[in-house]
Amino acid sequence: MAREMIRQGGRSARIQEEVHKAVNALLKTHDRSEITVPMVAERAGVTPSTVYRRWGDLAQLFADVAVAHMRPQGEPENTGDTQRDIESFILQYAEEMSSRVGRQMLADVIGGGGSQATVKCCGFTYVYLETINSRAIARGEAGFSVEDVVDFVVAPVIYHILFKDSAPTPDYCLQLVARLFHG
Amino acid sequence: MAREMIRQGGRSARIQEEVHKAVNALLKTHDRSEITVPMVAERAGVTPSTVYRRWGDLAQLFADVAVAHMRPQGEPENTGDTQRDIESFILQYAEEMSSRVGRQMLADVIGGGGSQATVKCCGFTYVYLETINSRAIARGEAGFSVEDVVDFVVAPVIYHILFKDSAPTPDYCLQLVARLFHG
Repeated sequence: MAREMIRQGGRSARIQEEVHKAVNALLKTHDRSEITVPMVAERAGVTPSTVYRRWGDLAQLFADVAVAHMRPQGEPENTGDTQRDIESFILQYAEEMSSRVGRQMLADVIGGGGSQATVKCCGFTYVYLETINSRAIARGEAGFSVEDVVDFVVAPVIYHILFKDSAPTPDYCLQLVARLFHG
Repeated sequence: MAREMIRQGGRSARIQEEVHKAVNALLKTHDRSEITVPMVAERAGVTPSTVYRRWGDLAQLFADVAVAHMRPQGEPENTGDTQRDIESFILQYAEEMSSRVGRQMLADVIGGGGSQATVKCCGFTYVYLETINSRAIARGEAGFSVEDVVDFVVAPVIYHILFKDSAPTPDYCLQLVARLFHG
């Protein structure tokens, strides 16, 4: 039984990989409004019902693919200075998320309808900021409130990207950090 | 020519009304993933190409319908006290936006792909807060920065609703306001 479970896990992971690859390939050659579950399934070499069973619908599949792209690729920059580490994080985050690709990822994650994708996405941000915070504490500093950085630096940047018709400028991002650290 | 333009405007407004009505009616009886542009068009008594020409695709049509629902129905509460007016606004906003219907509206507005719907949505918030601010100034107070309320009260509430798996509590909302006004 346990061995079967392991084999199922392996197959399940391979199906996910193939389906994600199919979505990414189709997005390069098609307008997203033209993409359908049967198209994805055909390209991935699975049946449409496999896709429906696992992802529910196309919006949730797009959300899952977007989350995979949003996973941070490495550790946060380590400048030895907490405020500079946070500045470096938010400048990169704002730039990536306000790009055309970033905006589409945000729309996909939020448009998935469920909370699974958004909670994962938010989790990446927390883990990243907690790494910066742990380094600060390891240097003998007091550390900072990760919640406060999310509420007063990340949230305004995301609100700006989602609801305003312009990208948040580097100056705006740096002012949010300065205001949190120096009032 | 001018008269023709006016008649076009009237027809255009009636088409919008019928199409919005059709979407709202279909959403009551169908899962949104089942709804198609031809279904909406048939119910509204227009051709599918009218819908495509005017709204682009279904996601943009859903976004437009959601924006219509998000338009504030009245003036902000007038308690005579600026902080209490803002508290009253954010408590109601958080409650409405974190409801199932509110979350779906946010997802529709953001998922529309363009910035038209999101910018309108953000505009409603600014107008509402500016009304509260104008009253404060009319009472002889200094007024407040509407930008700051958006960045440090509205944005964290929206981030919370979009990316966390729980509704922002009234206590959380009130603390955001208190922190902005009293540091």
